[in-house]
Amino acid sequence: MSLVSRQYHLERRPHGIPELDCFGLVERTLDAPGHGELLVRNEWLSVDPYMRGRMVDQKSYIPPFELNQPMDGAAVGVILESGDERFAPGDRISHFAGWRDLAVINADTANRIDTAAPPQAYLGPLGFPGLAAYAGLLRLGSPKPGETVFVSAAAGAVGSVVAQIAKIKGCRVIGSSGSDEKLAWLRDEIGVDAVINYRKVPDLTAALREAAPNGIDVYFDNVGGGHLEAAIEVANEFARFTLCGMIEQYNIEPSGPRNIMAVIGKSIRLEGMIVTNFLDMWEDFQRDVTGWIDGGKLKWQETVVDGLENMPAAFIDLFAGKNSGKMLVKLSD
Amino acid sequence: MSLVSRQYHLERRPHGIPELDCFGLVERTLDAPGHGELLVRNEWLSVDPYMRGRMVDQKSYIPPFELNQPMDGAAVGVILESGDERFAPGDRISHFAGWRDLAVINADTANRIDTAAPPQAYLGPLGFPGLAAYAGLLRLGSPKPGETVFVSAAAGAVGSVVAQIAKIKGCRVIGSSGSDEKLAWLRDEIGVDAVINYRKVPDLTAALREAAPNGIDVYFDNVGGGHLEAAIEVANEFARFTLCGMIEQYNIEPSGPRNIMAVIGKSIRLEGMIVTNFLDMWEDFQRDVTGWIDGGKLKWQETVVDGLENMPAAFIDLFAGKNSGKMLVKLSD
Repeated sequence: MSLVSRQYHLERRPHGIPELDCFGLVERTLDAPGHGELLVRNEWLSVDPYMRGRMVDQKSYIPPFELNQPMDGAAVGVILESGDERFAPGDRISHFAGWRDLAVINADTANRIDTAAPPQAYLGPLGFPGLAAYAGLLRLGSPKPGETVFVSAAAGAVGSVVAQIAKIKGCRVIGSSGSDEKLAWLRDEIGVDAVINYRKVPDLTAALREAAPNGIDVYFDNVGGGHLEAAIEVANEFARFTLCGMIEQYNIEPSGPRNIMAVIGKSIRLEGMIVTNFLDMWEDFQRDVTGWIDGGKLKWQETVVDGLENMPAAFIDLFAGKNSGKMLVKLSD
Repeated sequence: MSLVSRQYHLERRPHGIPELDCFGLVERTLDAPGHGELLVRNEWLSVDPYMRGRMVDQKSYIPPFELNQPMDGAAVGVILESGDERFAPGDRISHFAGWRDLAVINADTANRIDTAAPPQAYLGPLGFPGLAAYAGLLRLGSPKPGETVFVSAAAGAVGSVVAQIAKIKGCRVIGSSGSDEKLAWLRDEIGVDAVINYRKVPDLTAALREAAPNGIDVYFDNVGGGHLEAAIEVANEFARFTLCGMIEQYNIEPSGPRNIMAVIGKSIRLEGMIVTNFLDMWEDFQRDVTGWIDGGKLKWQETVVDGLENMPAAFIDLFAGKNSGKMLVKLSD
């Protein structure tokens, strides 16, 4: 068995939208797994907007990618060799050594996948994007039945789960996206009550006000920028804002909401979240989301790109909204 | 007894810093108080930055001042005639018919003042500014002993109470102000641990980082703008921000914090507050603050301007920071 890993290294830090030559596909020979380690062959690699933040050399909640070192991220794979008694060859696991085909990992970082759900769901609704939606909406947003929930990037990996949990909890849901096709899916398949194509409306605030004549009580922010301003403008008193992502801001000089004084006047609460701070909810999350999937109440979309060599392009496509739902790279055997 | 009230009307809406000719001093003859009403002669009028917001014609938590109608605000006065059995002539009350010398008010809006504290304290540490500090710091900021609390406009009517309650609760306190004299008072009389003159430091973020080498855990915002950005920059993970006022933003085209993405990365919570939503804490607040005043643990400063005719100038002076502590207008008999 070859122990050559094909892996991406960050070769230069992007300015603005990342370009293909930021990423280098490099071969590295691995040592055989030692005690407590696993050799894993990846099948699915997660492609996530938050990775853009790790390309900047600054202290944050997660270390930045180092130049000319292996990049990482969520992945699903099959164990080829195990140096840990908890795992055996053939076990399917989720882990964090993405952006490559073959990896040796610490067994403590692996989670066995053994349900009926398709394995890549553990990078989407049953993985961190799903937990971000579940925890960010339910714990921080605290939506009550009958309240209005606005979610931006509502067809995305996180947003689409937010929209569906909000519907399950009896809320009126408004979703935004930049694609009519995605909005049709949200409206017709998911049952979102009102949709906004933010690329087509001349005035996002006016469109949101029309979609939410009674104002919004919860805003789940995946976009930032003009979406956050519009949400503040249309928010009701005591609205709760979960700040989960700001994809519109990642590649530009960011700006803050100019109407932030209304946060005082309306007694709005804004709370930033990092999904790994909500691992105490993992079991409830798995039980609830698995139940909703089994009951047909929670659906998701995937955009699958074939082949490791196409991963940088898939990542760049995130910022043009070319994915519908979860962006994934699938590796052949 | 003359029933002529001298009262301010807003005669035009200000753009930027208000000017004297926005305010007109008008005489109006009052009807004698009817059943359930009180005739009150004001002794002290409250002059508050938040009143600037009411000069803008927009829906907010409190109705805007109407043009050519009496302005209002907190005041302390003595009852001349009572149409309500709960009050008698000679009673001293706090109420909301400020910006005038004589008023007929609904008795339900009056609160009797009958403690040893000077009556004008009920417009400061024992009034809404004090409650804003008490509730905003303790309920929203939740400071723990040993944590670092940053408060802007720390010598002001709200900020100085925040700083002292934070000290009482065992926190390290950093205060900002635009005057070395005010900062000396904070440091020498109040025991604030570190002070920043935001007008003199070349880089507020760097100054705050130096004053808070372990970062800040709670920020009580009275200023907005650059202060809010600096606080986000220096905040620790899970910091709590109470947004109480943004005096720097009231007279300009407001802008939002450009580093708002760090609210996500650091899991910061920002919460806007309106003091009247915390009336459930009134009794605890009165008991605690009265006790702290009696025990010499809570001090305050006042800037007293004599005469109703000087009230507009006193209000305008707020935005140049000419007050030390609570800005008051004192009316002669």
